[in-house]
Amino acid sequence: MVLLTFLGAVIALAFAAVTAKKVLNFSEGTEQMQKIAKSIRAGANAYLKRQYSVVAIFFGGMFVLLCVMAACKLLTWFVPFAFVTGGFFSGLSGFIGMKIATLANSRTANACREGLNNGLRVAFSAGSVMGFTVVGLGLLDISVWFFILKFIFKLDPAMISTTMLTFGMGASSMALFARVGGGIFTKAADVGADLVGKVEAGIPEDDPRNPAAIADNVGDNVGDVAGMGADLYESYVSSVISASALGVSAFSGSIKAMAVPMLLAALGIVMSIIGTFFVRTGESIDQKVLLKALRRGTNLSAVAIAVIALPVVWFVLGRENLGLYFAILAGLLAGILIGLSTEYFTSDTYKPTRKLASTSETGSATIIIGGLGLGMKSTILPIAIVSVSVLCAFFVSGGTGSTSMGLYGIALAAVGMLSTLGITLATDAYGPVADNAGGIAEMTGLPPEVRERTDALDSLGNTTAATGKGFAIGSAALTALALIASYIEKVKTVDAAVTFEDFSLMNPVVLIGLFIGGCLPFLFAALTMESVGRAAQSIVVEVRRQFKEIKGIMEGKADPDYATCVDLCTKSSLREMILPTIVAVVTPIAVGLILGYKGVVGMLAGATVTGFLMAVFMSNSGGAWDNAKKYIESGEHGGKGSEQHKAAVVGDTVGDPFKDTSGPAINILIKLLSMVSIVFATLVVNYSIF
Amino acid sequence: MVLLTFLGAVIALAFAAVTAKKVLNFSEGTEQMQKIAKSIRAGANAYLKRQYSVVAIFFGGMFVLLCVMAACKLLTWFVPFAFVTGGFFSGLSGFIGMKIATLANSRTANACREGLNNGLRVAFSAGSVMGFTVVGLGLLDISVWFFILKFIFKLDPAMISTTMLTFGMGASSMALFARVGGGIFTKAADVGADLVGKVEAGIPEDDPRNPAAIADNVGDNVGDVAGMGADLYESYVSSVISASALGVSAFSGSIKAMAVPMLLAALGIVMSIIGTFFVRTGESIDQKVLLKALRRGTNLSAVAIAVIALPVVWFVLGRENLGLYFAILAGLLAGILIGLSTEYFTSDTYKPTRKLASTSETGSATIIIGGLGLGMKSTILPIAIVSVSVLCAFFVSGGTGSTSMGLYGIALAAVGMLSTLGITLATDAYGPVADNAGGIAEMTGLPPEVRERTDALDSLGNTTAATGKGFAIGSAALTALALIASYIEKVKTVDAAVTFEDFSLMNPVVLIGLFIGGCLPFLFAALTMESVGRAAQSIVVEVRRQFKEIKGIMEGKADPDYATCVDLCTKSSLREMILPTIVAVVTPIAVGLILGYKGVVGMLAGATVTGFLMAVFMSNSGGAWDNAKKYIESGEHGGKGSEQHKAAVVGDTVGDPFKDTSGPAINILIKLLSMVSIVFATLVVNYSIF
Repeated sequence: MVLLTFLGAVIALAFAAVTAKKVLNFSEGTEQMQKIAKSIRAGANAYLKRQYSVVAIFFGGMFVLLCVMAACKLLTWFVPFAFVTGGFFSGLSGFIGMKIATLANSRTANACREGLNNGLRVAFSAGSVMGFTVVGLGLLDISVWFFILKFIFKLDPAMISTTMLTFGMGASSMALFARVGGGIFTKAADVGADLVGKVEAGIPEDDPRNPAAIADNVGDNVGDVAGMGADLYESYVSSVISASALGVSAFSGSIKAMAVPMLLAALGIVMSIIGTFFVRTGESIDQKVLLKALRRGTNLSAVAIAVIALPVVWFVLGRENLGLYFAILAGLLAGILIGLSTEYFTSDTYKPTRKLASTSETGSATIIIGGLGLGMKSTILPIAIVSVSVLCAFFVSGGTGSTSMGLYGIALAAVGMLSTLGITLATDAYGPVADNAGGIAEMTGLPPEVRERTDALDSLGNTTAATGKGFAIGSAALTALALIASYIEKVKTVDAAVTFEDFSLMNPVVLIGLFIGGCLPFLFAALTMESVGRAAQSIVVEVRRQFKEIKGIMEGKADPDYATCVDLCTKSSLREMILPTIVAVVTPIAVGLILGYKGVVGMLAGATVTGFLMAVFMSNSGGAWDNAKKYIESGEHGGKGSEQHKAAVVGDTVGDPFKDTSGPAINILIKLLSMVSIVFATLVVNYSIF
Repeated sequence: MVLLTFLGAVIALAFAAVTAKKVLNFSEGTEQMQKIAKSIRAGANAYLKRQYSVVAIFFGGMFVLLCVMAACKLLTWFVPFAFVTGGFFSGLSGFIGMKIATLANSRTANACREGLNNGLRVAFSAGSVMGFTVVGLGLLDISVWFFILKFIFKLDPAMISTTMLTFGMGASSMALFARVGGGIFTKAADVGADLVGKVEAGIPEDDPRNPAAIADNVGDNVGDVAGMGADLYESYVSSVISASALGVSAFSGSIKAMAVPMLLAALGIVMSIIGTFFVRTGESIDQKVLLKALRRGTNLSAVAIAVIALPVVWFVLGRENLGLYFAILAGLLAGILIGLSTEYFTSDTYKPTRKLASTSETGSATIIIGGLGLGMKSTILPIAIVSVSVLCAFFVSGGTGSTSMGLYGIALAAVGMLSTLGITLATDAYGPVADNAGGIAEMTGLPPEVRERTDALDSLGNTTAATGKGFAIGSAALTALALIASYIEKVKTVDAAVTFEDFSLMNPVVLIGLFIGGCLPFLFAALTMESVGRAAQSIVVEVRRQFKEIKGIMEGKADPDYATCVDLCTKSSLREMILPTIVAVVTPIAVGLILGYKGVVGMLAGATVTGFLMAVFMSNSGGAWDNAKKYIESGEHGGKGSEQHKAAVVGDTVGDPFKDTSGPAINILIKLLSMVSIVFATLVVNYSIF
């Protein structure tokens, strides 16, 4: 089994490498295109280098702390090392994804000169490199650790699975740094560039005269690519290892139950690779045609994994546990449905976003109220979908007879949802590449039909990004529930007297935990939004300064100083990413030490519920504002430059940190809280006040 | 004991009557002032008459439904009648408060011509009439029902307390109608008047040329006065009866435990009356001096009740239960602290709102982001305060030994917090009276120093309203927790096999309930915000029409058609209030029938947590935007008419439905959900699917 998983990892990485080579064979285009691509690459590289060195300090400190705890017998000695590898691979996923994206952007722009299908192939291939790197590294980490723990240290399955849970903490903290830092960078640059460039100076987006233009493009790579890579690495790994841990306890120590999530992941890779070959399109820039091209690939992979999961469950766990197969199906289906619901609420082909666009008629206040209302209302469908799938997964797995079987079912639903991550991530990660390609096309003055093509690809990217976000949020909720269950399993290994009654809502400690946990996503959203605001402010000041001090920028006679803007974004995002991460790491330990493990469970449940709601709300509000603006720009409600358009720009500016900083970061937050709780469980059980 | 409670009710009502007479002795001012006051009064009366007839249909339908259920032995026959009286008294509280407020507005304006202290006395007296009517009617309802059930039907304490809980459902549904309907009316009129009058036509607020000016003033009365009256009637009654119910179960059926909350409420009335005599001020319009004048009264009442509660607990429940006294203290203190935290986050004398005002420098998008961030961040303190007070109340009451004692302690904390409601409500309700007085002063062209004085009173009203909201939210959270406990007690009477383990977070049904409940406040906020948007839209269209079609309005030569605007607001708010209320009533029944009582408890806990967070978030964001705008109007950041001011107006417009419609309605929602669940408990336990 470990061999098969390892093989899956190797296949994924090999496919990524081959695809990367294919991308590199395309031409980078004109000299000017190469120059701009180089600046973007340099900025992104410099940012990641500095981000990783800040993160290294955090990891170093945590490593020492975990070693001390291991020395005090509060942890096993594996934990500090597992923690570090989790963080390392998560960071590496982001790094490789960013690398290929910055190499593919000019190539996509150049390919678009020849035709739309060519452009799509290059951009989508770059997305695939990222997608398969993430899943490949994830499975590699899992299978290597499994091999070491099982065959070198000869631990029993229960010990293996709880140890492996702890590298989730490394992956989660790295992911949070990447998402928060990258999210602040990209939105500070974006908002700053728009506020001075578009609104004050009246020049179009991606205009080379805007000093923040390069920073804006760098931001797409470090935020939407590197951040997303680290993020989904974490989701993927967490879902597989939490399912393994719950499987071991459901099947009283049998290694077979660990095999299922790993095999599913490995097979999902193969199915995803097959799916990628079905992504191609003609020359029509019609969104529906393009979307169909991408959907063909993802749907095919989903159906394939749905079919192949049946024999896996049957042969590994036996016919009597076939109910678990339906749990996997429930997860797979839930992922698709949440994606569709996100699309419905944020795409301008449907009523909600069109209605939102019409509220621009009465000004920015009404479009803000409308967008907030839309986002809040859009939480119902995902809540209903997750609720139904959790109930199904629990009961078809036999949760009525054995709660731990039911919880294993919920965890498998999360694995099912993420099994085709290779290809769903490819369709998601291709968006920023197309966005960058459009920027390069604009900055180098390529003919308008090229920009039209990159715009078509970019706009499609917005839709797939929305779907991808739906997946990320849905899987985060399911994984978080599985992690809460894993936490309780972990507590049981320390204190055998734990009962389900301990976590009753009638226990005031649990209730208080619920309140505190519920508050965390609000706090987190506030912190990250304020960070974006502060960082954007510094860009505004700098761009204004350049417009004033560097003569001839506006006439295109002098080059603006791009590097300073990139540098400013780098500095402020690195500074701003520290506090939110520290809050996320320290709170569960503090709550645990004061309220004990019952309070922690309450906190985790509270954070999962409001975190899920806030993430959906913020992502969908932001997505809808963005697309309402695009809809108006397409000529509706007065079109570009009208008062309505100005109102829509205000909505979009508010929506930027909503959908690209706070919303996605909350997804990671809810899992990191559980991961930290699991690692510090022994400490909390032994030394808490209540 | 019932006699003492009854006596408290009579004292409160008598004091309200005497104060009302005092208010009416003041002169209404010039003929023009009388004319405008009359229009406002007529509009408010007409609105309430139509609102009550719509509500009567709902109550009629529910009455029939409850009678059918009683016939099927799913309820006792008392319930339908208790339900109706609860609704009737809640509505009556709002009606009387509105009546006196519309009689006092011109009198306040006139008194302000003579001096600030006179104005304060009239406005505050009107507020007192409302405050003491609410608590008087609340205690009257409680004591009369108690008398009937105990001495005529000779029920045992457990039956008495569960029957009395059901008139909470009547009060809550009436309160929700009043808050939502009134909230939509007032904000639709306000937003509509501002968008066309202030922004498009450029005339000042309350200008008689604005066709929506009267509707705006009517709105203050039907929303901020009648709505608040019905709302706080409900809070007050719910806290007393839920404490009584939990007391009976904690003291295994003893009537003594019911006596404590009732006696506290009665004594609170006496202490509040004493407090009112200490509210007076000089002629300085300095906010700090004015605030001190009001605070003197409320603080004195709070200290007095803190002192007198000690002997009450001691003599009624015995020295061994003195811990409960500290639970009461914890609640009283928590109320004051939450009020202070609200003030810190929303008053422009502190940093957060001043910083928010400075974000107007970069436009409306940044002030929106800043306000949302501020509101989200402001949830931490109230969460911490409520958490600590719940833990304290639980443990000092002996919750470690007996959970039901601990829950009784939490319920008593809520009663402690609301015991001085008479005077806190007076300081809160006086705000809209002063606001109206300012409107009348403006419309009748009284000398500027009069407007200056009414403005000073109004501005102070914003601060006390913020404090009042803090109280309302804090008490809602504590009462909601007590009601969840009461629900479980009720379920136990139907199905004796209920254990605490049933409500474990590891039960997927409880978890799903948590998700659904958590979603409700989001849905509710979205529905109410959209309603305000739609209603405001219709006012915008009407005001624009009048400006165009009625010649000479802008020159002051022709009177605008005020009545049509009032009528439009009335119609749309009545139409819009139906859906949210139905959602609130139907959801707990539907969730109960599908997920069973375990799911209901999860739902109630989820709704309480996110409801509390959303209510604090929305109220504080809205309050801060409002005061940031006022701060800029006072001459900071460019002052009135500047670009910064325009940005702040956008913030304030978004904040209006936040703080005056959605936020307060969520408070009622979380209690109504519990009330409905309690009434339908027998049905749910017998017929649910899970």
